Amino acid sequence: MATIKDIAEKLGLPVSTVSKALNGSGEVNEKTRQQVFDTALALGYASRKERKQKPSSKICIFIENMGFEKIEHFGYEIIVGFRLAATERNWEVDIVPISMNERIDYVYDDYMIRNGYSGGFLLGFFLHSDFHRQLQHTIIPTVVLDNLILNPKVACVGVDNYQGVTYAVEHLASLGHTSIALMNGEGNSRVSQERYQGFKVGMNKCNLPVRKDLAAYGDFTSDNTAPYVRQFVENGATAIVCASDYIAVGVLGELAKLDLRVPQDISVTGFDDIPIARYSAPPLTTIRQDRLNIGKSACVALEQIIEGMAISRFLLAPELIVRGSTGTVR
Amino acid sequence: MATIKDIAEKLGLPVSTVSKALNGSGEVNEKTRQQVFDTALALGYASRKERKQKPSSKICIFIENMGFEKIEHFGYEIIVGFRLAATERNWEVDIVPISMNERIDYVYDDYMIRNGYSGGFLLGFFLHSDFHRQLQHTIIPTVVLDNLILNPKVACVGVDNYQGVTYAVEHLASLGHTSIALMNGEGNSRVSQERYQGFKVGMNKCNLPVRKDLAAYGDFTSDNTAPYVRQFVENGATAIVCASDYIAVGVLGELAKLDLRVPQDISVTGFDDIPIARYSAPPLTTIRQDRLNIGKSACVALEQIIEGMAISRFLLAPELIVRGSTGTVR
Repeated sequence: MATIKDIAEKLGLPVSTVSKALNGSGEVNEKTRQQVFDTALALGYASRKERKQKPSSKICIFIENMGFEKIEHFGYEIIVGFRLAATERNWEVDIVPISMNERIDYVYDDYMIRNGYSGGFLLGFFLHSDFHRQLQHTIIPTVVLDNLILNPKVACVGVDNYQGVTYAVEHLASLGHTSIALMNGEGNSRVSQERYQGFKVGMNKCNLPVRKDLAAYGDFTSDNTAPYVRQFVENGATAIVCASDYIAVGVLGELAKLDLRVPQDISVTGFDDIPIARYSAPPLTTIRQDRLNIGKSACVALEQIIEGMAISRFLLAPELIVRGSTGTVR
Repeated sequence: MATIKDIAEKLGLPVSTVSKALNGSGEVNEKTRQQVFDTALALGYASRKERKQKPSSKICIFIENMGFEKIEHFGYEIIVGFRLAATERNWEVDIVPISMNERIDYVYDDYMIRNGYSGGFLLGFFLHSDFHRQLQHTIIPTVVLDNLILNPKVACVGVDNYQGVTYAVEHLASLGHTSIALMNGEGNSRVSQERYQGFKVGMNKCNLPVRKDLAAYGDFTSDNTAPYVRQFVENGATAIVCASDYIAVGVLGELAKLDLRVPQDISVTGFDDIPIARYSAPPLTTIRQDRLNIGKSACVALEQIIEGMAISRFLLAPELIVRGSTGTVR
């Protein structure tokens, strides 16, 4: 395998110029870059990193310090997926529970450097503005779940929320539904906004109108859907797309109180495919997030950032899982 | 390294159950999956694929059969980035020029299977609807540039268009501009739509209004900007965000005809950072796409799809490059 020096000798160029060309620097003119690339390909160039056995890196996964139930339902498999991929790379992984949705009293970069971490994976749903601010300027390769941070060192992983809700809408439209409502999560959450965009895209694709009286922001729990469900039913909805399985389970409860049968009178879809989706009555048609592969994708993204790639978003394709909560329009 | 059989023996479970649990199948109950994952981690599980030396794969890069100039300016480095990453993986790469924007007279999957390709990378800007339709149902791991195909076997790579245009708008706002226009590419192009969304997001972030009389769809060339530029100037624009460097160069020409100086009278930004951006008069402030890493990311994505990950989008972070075409508002 050839080195930068081999390429430089072959072309009669300074090593620094070859290095800059290979790193995509704008300082090298186009013709020279092209010669360097051609020669690199011809000689079978491999960077020093590739030639040496990679040293072991230490990575920190921060998990939201919430109740065990939620971690069990959502975060556990992501961590397993990450760790399986990290093992292949000979990486050590520490897991540190913190409260990401509260003010933090330390500097993220200091913490990571002091503890010898090469990268971090933040597995929390709501990041406090403190964290957001710090991550916008961090120099530590970092991956976050479902949050977008404008910093080339920070990548976002998760499923493609647009696609997921689009699939739910298309499924309902194929069953004849035209009055489809959206029961969303918190309005200030990025995930909610993306799911609303996906709803609009899906409705447009199916030539259905997005009605303001059939879309509401609430929160991502089961507890606060009553007024919205009542409103949707009064306004003629025959199907309710929910932004999470927890919301969908709450909606099922409210519909039961109104003596409406699912799916005979009204259809309901969830999002996430957490275990309760399979055990609700009826079982939920939902959008599955492949959590093992989300964990793996976080590890792949982190490896690329460490190697110098500036990643914005690495999004997986969601999958529609059809169960008993959806049926043809009444 | 442990195998699936080791895990099955340790837990007294059928091999098929362990395999399903590790593949994330919904048929295995939650408790069993958790036991399997815990045991897999404890025993240091590695899949057969990991234990064997990976066989060499053969990949096909399709490049748009356009003039050499455009490939040289944009596609060449992407191909180099892909090939460098493919070499590390011991992959063979063939390059096949085709006309992706025309009707195709063969079946993509047949072609790939007949020629022994494990995956494809389509490097074209406009995909004919024939191609779109075929890719929606392909079983061949495939990566496309700047196109979104709803198929878990097909991933999209490119830079984050939203982020890029947001950076351009924020840069202009920081120079005092409030009447910012958008000269976009074709209205039916996904890239144009995303760049328009990024424009709206950026203007919102800067508390600036998006004015209909200061936004237009044209095309991605230099040749057809005259009527729009005239309209923007008449409507008081002090800056024009362009959706490509080619468009920006066209806009510079039209502004010269109107006797307007750049950046003293009006500022202009491009997108892509192709070589002409550095050599225009004045040199263009633009949004850089890291084409070497786009190529690398295509290879990384393809590897993950081949291993079973369903990727929707793998987007890199763009970079603002400030040159002479932007200045403080007059």
